[in-house]
Amino acid sequence: MKVNVGKKILATNEEYAAKNRRILSESKKLCLNMISSPGSGKTTILTRTINDLKGKIKIGVIEGDIQTDLDAQRIKASGAAAVQINTDGACHLSAVQVNGALAKLSLDSLDLIFIENVGNLVCPSAFELGENAKIVVLSVAEGDDKPAKYPAVFAKSKVMLINKIDLLKTGTQVDFDIERAKADASRLNKNIKIFSVSAKTGEGMAAWYDWLTESVKNIRQQFQG
Amino acid sequence: MKVNVGKKILATNEEYAAKNRRILSESKKLCLNMISSPGSGKTTILTRTINDLKGKIKIGVIEGDIQTDLDAQRIKASGAAAVQINTDGACHLSAVQVNGALAKLSLDSLDLIFIENVGNLVCPSAFELGENAKIVVLSVAEGDDKPAKYPAVFAKSKVMLINKIDLLKTGTQVDFDIERAKADASRLNKNIKIFSVSAKTGEGMAAWYDWLTESVKNIRQQFQG
Repeated sequence: MKVNVGKKILATNEEYAAKNRRILSESKKLCLNMISSPGSGKTTILTRTINDLKGKIKIGVIEGDIQTDLDAQRIKASGAAAVQINTDGACHLSAVQVNGALAKLSLDSLDLIFIENVGNLVCPSAFELGENAKIVVLSVAEGDDKPAKYPAVFAKSKVMLINKIDLLKTGTQVDFDIERAKADASRLNKNIKIFSVSAKTGEGMAAWYDWLTESVKNIRQQFQG
Repeated sequence: MKVNVGKKILATNEEYAAKNRRILSESKKLCLNMISSPGSGKTTILTRTINDLKGKIKIGVIEGDIQTDLDAQRIKASGAAAVQINTDGACHLSAVQVNGALAKLSLDSLDLIFIENVGNLVCPSAFELGENAKIVVLSVAEGDDKPAKYPAVFAKSKVMLINKIDLLKTGTQVDFDIERAKADASRLNKNIKIFSVSAKTGEGMAAWYDWLTESVKNIRQQFQG
């Protein structure tokens, strides 16, 4: 019975994920589902990206949190549209919740929708939300062994952002072998794109912005072609 | 039906948690369930604690990971007994798994059993394992907003270890307001004990060792009295 009910929950989720995919493709919008541990820097990556791409890409954010609207407040302060979802204890966002949030965003005025999932490196990767791609964020403070220990999300993501590389400068205590993390992630997913960034200092962010700009362009062409 | 099956899973878990509690109380052992995000430093806290308390407290470790035995290898290298559980995708340890692991440890030769849960700040707090207490670890690199955003585990833990305080020294880029994190955790749980430590440098660990020593003594007296 456990398996049947699990299947039923996943089937309902997949039904709404398909609806979300349809809404996004009809409106020619790029939608990215950001997944990471708590505190890897997802919100800081988003606020910097929104600020640096102002006037170039119009960004909206669906914020998933168990409690509080602290992150949505930070996003709104950066000038972007944000819709908060509180999961009230649930460990991941569902496609039903994202469906409700999409209805609250003015999609016509946007190019790109980020979904910031609940901070959890395990559960969110099992629930499709209708996104075009998953983006996994790994902070160097978490250690270079995380792709090997939590493989599912790295196997399913189109992009890995290695964040907080400013902590690797001489004088700090963080040991993180970037080459090991890259090699382990690439073994799980040979097409994964990897950007090493500091959302705090801005280092490395330009390559991420280029990828976003190219991906927004590709989505428009794909749905026109 | 979802709720019934959820209840059934929790009932089976609670049944095994009760068995584990009985095994631990009959053998007068202290058992602590460590919960945190991936990469907060649980394994490093354990290896340092094992080394520093050698000859004083005999420690065994049950290691929970989704994949790999990287952490159990690190524990064994420190000289302690370790049993690895791989959850194969599951986001938390269950009492059934811990029951099996307890049978593999020579309890008679130990004073204290640590259970290192899967790195996940959400799901593990919902599953009792038969432990005497939960210990939540928060790394300063994760940010001081985590007790407010992920309240359940902070509400249920007897101790919060704020780890990696070496990253707060002048010259690094980590912003973390220790007083805010303490205040938010204490609002959720007025009896929570909080130790600020660096498992890397050893700073602050003595107070944690005092708490462990006292707790092992209390367990022995409780079951004798």
